[in-house]
Amino acid sequence: MPKRKQTFSLGLDFGTNSVRALIVDVAAGEEVASHVWSYAHGDAGILLGPKDPNLARQHPGDYVKGIEQSVRAALKAARRAKDFSPEAIIGIGVDTTGSTPVPVDKAGEPLASRDAFKKDLNAMAWLWKDHTAYVEAAEITRKAEDMRPQYLAKCGGVYSSEWFWAKVLHCARVAPKVYKAAYTWVECADWIPALLTGTTAPAAVKRCICAAGHKAMFNPSWNGYPDVEFLRAVDARLVPLRQTLPDTALNVSQAVGTLTESWAKRLGLRAGIPVAAGAFDAHLGGVGSGIRAGVLVKIIGTSTCDMMVAPLSQALPDIPGLCGIVPESILPGCYGLEAGQSAVGDIFNWFVNSVKPAKMGHKELTAEAEQLKPGESGLLALDWNNGNRTILVDQRLTGLMLGMTLHTLPSEMYRALIEATAFGARRIADRFEEYGVKVERVVNCGGISVKNPLVMQIYADVMGRPLEISRSPQTCALGAAMAGAVVAGTANGGHDTFTKAIRAMTGVLSTRFKPKPKNQAVYDRLYTLYCTLHDGFGTRTYQESLFGVMKDLLAIRDEVRR
Amino acid sequence: MPKRKQTFSLGLDFGTNSVRALIVDVAAGEEVASHVWSYAHGDAGILLGPKDPNLARQHPGDYVKGIEQSVRAALKAARRAKDFSPEAIIGIGVDTTGSTPVPVDKAGEPLASRDAFKKDLNAMAWLWKDHTAYVEAAEITRKAEDMRPQYLAKCGGVYSSEWFWAKVLHCARVAPKVYKAAYTWVECADWIPALLTGTTAPAAVKRCICAAGHKAMFNPSWNGYPDVEFLRAVDARLVPLRQTLPDTALNVSQAVGTLTESWAKRLGLRAGIPVAAGAFDAHLGGVGSGIRAGVLVKIIGTSTCDMMVAPLSQALPDIPGLCGIVPESILPGCYGLEAGQSAVGDIFNWFVNSVKPAKMGHKELTAEAEQLKPGESGLLALDWNNGNRTILVDQRLTGLMLGMTLHTLPSEMYRALIEATAFGARRIADRFEEYGVKVERVVNCGGISVKNPLVMQIYADVMGRPLEISRSPQTCALGAAMAGAVVAGTANGGHDTFTKAIRAMTGVLSTRFKPKPKNQAVYDRLYTLYCTLHDGFGTRTYQESLFGVMKDLLAIRDEVRR
Repeated sequence: MPKRKQTFSLGLDFGTNSVRALIVDVAAGEEVASHVWSYAHGDAGILLGPKDPNLARQHPGDYVKGIEQSVRAALKAARRAKDFSPEAIIGIGVDTTGSTPVPVDKAGEPLASRDAFKKDLNAMAWLWKDHTAYVEAAEITRKAEDMRPQYLAKCGGVYSSEWFWAKVLHCARVAPKVYKAAYTWVECADWIPALLTGTTAPAAVKRCICAAGHKAMFNPSWNGYPDVEFLRAVDARLVPLRQTLPDTALNVSQAVGTLTESWAKRLGLRAGIPVAAGAFDAHLGGVGSGIRAGVLVKIIGTSTCDMMVAPLSQALPDIPGLCGIVPESILPGCYGLEAGQSAVGDIFNWFVNSVKPAKMGHKELTAEAEQLKPGESGLLALDWNNGNRTILVDQRLTGLMLGMTLHTLPSEMYRALIEATAFGARRIADRFEEYGVKVERVVNCGGISVKNPLVMQIYADVMGRPLEISRSPQTCALGAAMAGAVVAGTANGGHDTFTKAIRAMTGVLSTRFKPKPKNQAVYDRLYTLYCTLHDGFGTRTYQESLFGVMKDLLAIRDEVRR
Repeated sequence: MPKRKQTFSLGLDFGTNSVRALIVDVAAGEEVASHVWSYAHGDAGILLGPKDPNLARQHPGDYVKGIEQSVRAALKAARRAKDFSPEAIIGIGVDTTGSTPVPVDKAGEPLASRDAFKKDLNAMAWLWKDHTAYVEAAEITRKAEDMRPQYLAKCGGVYSSEWFWAKVLHCARVAPKVYKAAYTWVECADWIPALLTGTTAPAAVKRCICAAGHKAMFNPSWNGYPDVEFLRAVDARLVPLRQTLPDTALNVSQAVGTLTESWAKRLGLRAGIPVAAGAFDAHLGGVGSGIRAGVLVKIIGTSTCDMMVAPLSQALPDIPGLCGIVPESILPGCYGLEAGQSAVGDIFNWFVNSVKPAKMGHKELTAEAEQLKPGESGLLALDWNNGNRTILVDQRLTGLMLGMTLHTLPSEMYRALIEATAFGARRIADRFEEYGVKVERVVNCGGISVKNPLVMQIYADVMGRPLEISRSPQTCALGAAMAGAVVAGTANGGHDTFTKAIRAMTGVLSTRFKPKPKNQAVYDRLYTLYCTLHDGFGTRTYQESLFGVMKDLLAIRDEVRR
């Protein structure tokens, strides 16, 4: 049998501060070359509000320039690295942040490219972390509670200020000129594939299920986007926008079109190769980590994203507190389930960079914290310094630490903060299982998973599960490249299905973190106390006083120290 | 009318690390001269356990040497300072730490002075902060709950490991030889006056109501010390000791005797001048701060002592959570009421010296914390890093802070800790008033009251009361000197009553801290939240969830920042 010709796929990963192009060998997932280009505008790519800390925008021009810069440099690096020809690239996949909607005109051009709007922050891409629309988000939540509770049931019960409808409505109110000039709004995840395939015209642009389903209340069970009656009740200005939106949405196994001649030339690629529908970075990160039924993929960085999939054939109930349950948002044929913690690494960074305890850095604190036994400090914390995304879906919750004495040390506090995020992680895994989504394996990726063995060991001990680490350090771009391989298909040297692509192109490191039974036993007791605080401060349930919490902590501490 | 001859009184103040001698003008309270002598033994006067952090003892020889060293130096300084003759000293008063019992032999000599015991830590004075007897304290509490609940009602419901019976019982168990050699145990507050008056023989030594009532379950309503039946039920070894104790106890307006020839010679004083019964430092500090009915005296340092008096004629109920309610323990004719916070300055010191935020000192943190408005940080803390003395009487409570975000600064945490101690202070004042002891004025003394205007202003704002500062920086020694003036009496150039002595010899500074209505309004709301946490974590009461706490804090924060 002759050796199959080697083929490659291109993943484009649009992050918050930069874009990465990754070239991957389709047969084995080998990452041949990549290049990162940092956005040119604003503060590390983000246009900040001069006064409003909630405002975060991005210049769409950076996306266009970023494609060219990153792809050309990646191709160059690949040629240097090995016997490689750009001709052998068979498909392209795209992941982006989101919800990051871009206002575009009737021709599909971003308003930001017009002279009249080129300095207007409201005409830019509204970055995922923009929270200016919190009033509108609350209005939408209230209206949905009244009129369409089913809309909320799929997004954890609360519509967020980070999401599509809240953002466009806020624009309609604060920048009516921009809103009027925008024929429609296109998610960044949709606009990039449209750009590469020449389908940016509003009638032609295809929408991906990932963005539509998780951020814009799209669901096949109610025939797509929210209905006109509902949107009119929220604000009549939303109705014309609704009429520009299609009734269908694509998943990442579907191509939105093929690479245009002009873009092929600009990038040095073959024209006509397929471009997959886009998806959010975390979701394709899940794919790049080898997600499948029974596997919880955790991307652990400044915050976490926790993803699972469940076959569409499974009768899946609504799961309270999950950010989203959307058919085919991660993998075709499966529900995509998204959860997450609003802050993880951000909490450790806050402690080190804002509290600055004893001027110790992460390294020194970690070295001391490693010496501590679970329970030894008598401390317990909640991981809510940036609110709680899952399962409470409440941005207005805050941090808590208890158990401090006159002898408490910074390293003990640091470890308690790590443990708090581990308890939060376990609470999410428990929620999946409570609703019938079994967690059989946990695969981790993201900066913390590869750089911080102390955190990973504590997570294993707290969750009581072995933790695996994704082999790829750039799972989002890898997942995007896998989508490129799938839309190319076997006939073109790609894969027919994600199942095959995942088997061929993903893997885990040999390093695994196994729970230590002795630690696990103590953490089980601490987790019970964590849940008492979690429910006490995070829900309206009646309960006995919290009198036991401090006593039990001291009892555990005294036992551990003995 | 001829000018009355100027007279002076001597106060001896035995602290934890040193002894102070203070010479005071009886007519106006002018502090003529003082001298502090640091104890020679141990670590700053404290003999620590080589292994047990609960152990803290003191060498009685330091007391003896301390009298001579401090008094002679003070007399010398007084002679230098003004036209003064030691002959004009008309009386002596003594205050000490406590409960600090000393084991003595049949002659009244401390066992520590015998060769056989001179290095035996159990034969030394058992310093107030010695906590080795925590098991015995719990036993005594349980037995009293069963047999003599009235004993507990006068000491807040819990017998402490710091107190007389727990300590002697612990000695009986761990050092039976010492216990057997000890004919009786004498509180330091009793032993010093006995020494100066030649009445150390066990049959002669007089006991003061302050130590007996607050630490040894002495109360006139049950004819003195706890009865033999009860003590036998606790441990039969306590019975012989009980039989060495008298049925009566003296208050500070009563002399235990007069200065012996030999001590007069040793010190350079007139023989035959009266020596008042001793009392604890805090209580005579209350006297030196001008305590009277309606005046709450707060000694604010590493911890606080909060004292009030109420006329014996007042029908006073038991007050749950107060460390002690003892007739004449502070002033003759009044109940003495003692409360306190286990840590105040110690909490601020923990934050600065252990957490070491951004390597900022008290000064830098105070400067930043001063710029913050009440409620602005969104933080709330409990002041329990060293347990809660009043009103929960629970050493096994710990600190708590909540409301932290990713932007919380050290100065905000520092201010939250100050506010927490202020809320704790208000809870104590509220408890007095809830049981009919009206707080009409608040007079403060102790290091923090004179050195930290930010703390004082926050206390005024939180308590909603103007705060006065005692004029004397050494109120304990002044109170002791006042006792010397009272036992001398008018006939000898002193005062007949404490009422007169207080009017003549004490005063407050012109600086007062007045509550700012705007701050007070915010703190009233925060105090309500503090009480929710206080009761939630500190009591067994059933209650609604604490869901409102974080939300309300953010609402207050957002209002204040607007």
